Amino acid sequence: MNGAQSLLETFVGAGVEVCFTNPGTSEMHFVAALDTEPGMRAVLGLFEGVVTGAADGYARMAGKPACTLLHLGPGLANGLANLHNARRARSPLVNVVGEHATHHRALDAPLTSNIEGFADPVSAWIRVSESAASVGRDAAEAVQAALSPPGQIATLILPADTAWNDAPGSATALTPPGLEPTNPDAVTGAIRALLSGEPCTFLLNGLGVSERGLQLISRIAQKTGARVLGDTFIARIPRGAGRFNIGRLPYFAEQAEEALVGTRHLILVDTKAPVSFFAYPGRSSELTPEGSQVHQLSLPGEDTLSALDAVVEGVGASIIEPEVSELARPGAPTGKLNPETIAQSLAALMPEQAILVNEATTSGFAIPGFTSRSVSHEWLDLTGGAIGMGLPAAVGAAIACPDRRVVALQADGSAMYTIQALWTMARENTDVTVILFANRKYAILQVEFMRVGAQNPGPKAMNMLDLSRPDLEFVHLARGMGVPAVQATDAASFHRALAESFATPGPYLIEALI
Amino acid sequence: MNGAQSLLETFVGAGVEVCFTNPGTSEMHFVAALDTEPGMRAVLGLFEGVVTGAADGYARMAGKPACTLLHLGPGLANGLANLHNARRARSPLVNVVGEHATHHRALDAPLTSNIEGFADPVSAWIRVSESAASVGRDAAEAVQAALSPPGQIATLILPADTAWNDAPGSATALTPPGLEPTNPDAVTGAIRALLSGEPCTFLLNGLGVSERGLQLISRIAQKTGARVLGDTFIARIPRGAGRFNIGRLPYFAEQAEEALVGTRHLILVDTKAPVSFFAYPGRSSELTPEGSQVHQLSLPGEDTLSALDAVVEGVGASIIEPEVSELARPGAPTGKLNPETIAQSLAALMPEQAILVNEATTSGFAIPGFTSRSVSHEWLDLTGGAIGMGLPAAVGAAIACPDRRVVALQADGSAMYTIQALWTMARENTDVTVILFANRKYAILQVEFMRVGAQNPGPKAMNMLDLSRPDLEFVHLARGMGVPAVQATDAASFHRALAESFATPGPYLIEALI
Repeated sequence: MNGAQSLLETFVGAGVEVCFTNPGTSEMHFVAALDTEPGMRAVLGLFEGVVTGAADGYARMAGKPACTLLHLGPGLANGLANLHNARRARSPLVNVVGEHATHHRALDAPLTSNIEGFADPVSAWIRVSESAASVGRDAAEAVQAALSPPGQIATLILPADTAWNDAPGSATALTPPGLEPTNPDAVTGAIRALLSGEPCTFLLNGLGVSERGLQLISRIAQKTGARVLGDTFIARIPRGAGRFNIGRLPYFAEQAEEALVGTRHLILVDTKAPVSFFAYPGRSSELTPEGSQVHQLSLPGEDTLSALDAVVEGVGASIIEPEVSELARPGAPTGKLNPETIAQSLAALMPEQAILVNEATTSGFAIPGFTSRSVSHEWLDLTGGAIGMGLPAAVGAAIACPDRRVVALQADGSAMYTIQALWTMARENTDVTVILFANRKYAILQVEFMRVGAQNPGPKAMNMLDLSRPDLEFVHLARGMGVPAVQATDAASFHRALAESFATPGPYLIEALI
Repeated sequence: MNGAQSLLETFVGAGVEVCFTNPGTSEMHFVAALDTEPGMRAVLGLFEGVVTGAADGYARMAGKPACTLLHLGPGLANGLANLHNARRARSPLVNVVGEHATHHRALDAPLTSNIEGFADPVSAWIRVSESAASVGRDAAEAVQAALSPPGQIATLILPADTAWNDAPGSATALTPPGLEPTNPDAVTGAIRALLSGEPCTFLLNGLGVSERGLQLISRIAQKTGARVLGDTFIARIPRGAGRFNIGRLPYFAEQAEEALVGTRHLILVDTKAPVSFFAYPGRSSELTPEGSQVHQLSLPGEDTLSALDAVVEGVGASIIEPEVSELARPGAPTGKLNPETIAQSLAALMPEQAILVNEATTSGFAIPGFTSRSVSHEWLDLTGGAIGMGLPAAVGAAIACPDRRVVALQADGSAMYTIQALWTMARENTDVTVILFANRKYAILQVEFMRVGAQNPGPKAMNMLDLSRPDLEFVHLARGMGVPAVQATDAASFHRALAESFATPGPYLIEALI
């Protein structure tokens, strides 16, 4: 057994079953070891942003880490933006980054770089394996670190000789630590606030928006009249029929402030006090209403559900049933194609247990409303604002859940950051439907340009904010990577295409001209 | 005037005339300022790897920096791989990375990250602007740092409020330091070695492969019988008719060792002692022949040409004319399409002063030989091994040299890392011909897999090393981004397509099925 085989055997023993890869020469022994380790599935991405985004989507749905395989510092660098998103999603994830052999590192060959430097901003745990003998143990610790609540990124840097030299064997899995207890004073304070008769608002994320967390929150809200909002961006939330469907804190700061007006007690569940996404001239970035009291019921990594159980009991909501949506699908839309008719078609047609990966940005505004009474489904957001997560995360979610349909709600501008994901969708024959919202501009930037006070954009500025001249032709792009695709220009043709995709195994892209 | 306007005015005053951009909300004031600064051209890339690779290609041909405009940490992260290449090319380059407003940074909003951490491994100079008043001075220092020999990467991090607040004015350009003197003992030692009658080999890079450097080296070589080799990868080298065309140190370590056999004195000109690109089990990574003496004639950043002048004089080669190639173009090839016939067509057809950007990897082996007696041209290599440089650098070179034809020699696997560059080629109507070598595999990895001793790849390993299932269809990909494209399957059709592209302004992609 060599170091690479020790690594893979340790991973599989610790429950890591999928590796998203974009290897190079220094990773060839890892690649060779794939054929001696039947428990590890390897999925190739043509660009590292696909690899890391897929690992994020996989982790969100599987609840456990995939590993990535990346080639030296530049390979890791290409994956960093989606690792930033994964860090914000608190996804458990193990990176394996190949490195030059230990005796080669000091020679400053062309591909030499400061890999630890690149890894540091996104990694909670970093290690450089020192020898083949230590690789198994390092791998076990990496998985343990990734699974440490609330979910972390572990980066294991693997010099080539630690992969090719003989190793004594694999290492046994290490148990990750459990959730930390919440602060009991916060529970007491929250109960007192909820019973005070003063206006209370819950702000939720993490375990607070798990299936069970939402049920507990619903009981509390019915009993006390508290308002409930989710964070603007959430890694994974169950929605639709049979679920307690919650609203979200709006993206734009003034709308978020408006949504929180009148709140006397802000109860934070597995999240922190709200701040605006960007700063704007003359505006505060902090969104906690002035004069309100903040109750930090739980922090990420803490035992949110036990705290919510205690609050349910404390407010006397134990016998209340959660309030859940009834199934009520709309009919087929007609007329012009626009974000509303797309949302209507989706709500009308999507299959039970669909997974919606949302990177639709400005074009997705109608989808939450239309889908909240559609079939039960799950919803994954862009958590870190680094666009280019949608298509890769859809790949990863589909690989984690091969029996479910994944729908990538994808804006055109952000699609182009990791468009290579289409090829992996085709190669792995994933059941992913890509709804490509083609408005042919960076619509969010045209809005934000005004909002930051930059006034009317001139022609050079406008040139930076639109995607025309030439138009992107996503049907061609998809075909170039083996994904069947069609363009839809009215509501009926979109509806037909969506129905066809949901009835057909494998990937499909619908370019919706809106 | 606000900080962003101060920044742009300072840049233009310091000779920075092009900005490659992929902006977000925090960069909107920079974008707005483009319309008040007529001296700055802005070129949009749909992905940051295109932006930084274009800035590298521009810098190599313009001999001065472009600036990039990148959105926060993840935007910089997406550009790091090509910044790694630019650092290895010693390209002068100024990054402007937007950051949250100073009062927003501590709030840990979703897009907050450690930007300095991401920048550090590739940047020789990093600054976070503290106020709008300091932005002009910071910009002037950034350009100065970028232009400091031998060429460096400067990264200026610009909090949004330093862009939108009032600034007192722009700053005047700062003179960069000059070249350092070389070590006079090395000059003396090299002369003594060259006159000793013992076998001498020059290894060249940087100023040693400039037009004038090559002329001086040619004189010395004719006089002394010294052998001349260039580094395996060179940022920019003039070639073809009228030039002294040199061989290169081979990529594979055993071939490089073979090329240096018998060398008694290794004279290093603007480069360091040779090392293998990767390490291999049981092989040394250092390529300097055992028992040979190393003469470090000049280091990067030193006055190489003066040292070479002194050597020319010292060996008595002042009156010798440089040995240059005569023009001798081949005829049109016929028969099957393969790397040799492609090289032959290129040598037969390419226009005077063409710029060849080489990321052809294994498919490009025949091109140096065929083109060395074609018209005078320039050749740009992938200097840092981070694939995905070719298409972006071709964009940048074309924008630096609008009167010259750029030919991107592009392998299929590496093309996919920054395929979005095709869109910028189309939007800017650059005269770029892309020769896309489609062998539908990571051919270099299939070679390296054996060479590192990983033995015969099994089916899972092979799955990671080829690009089939599905095949990439580059004609579709190009059309999807507005670039006319054609597929060539035999030598004659390739030749016709190449001739048509050279005769037609604007970009063109030829997918060569080899």
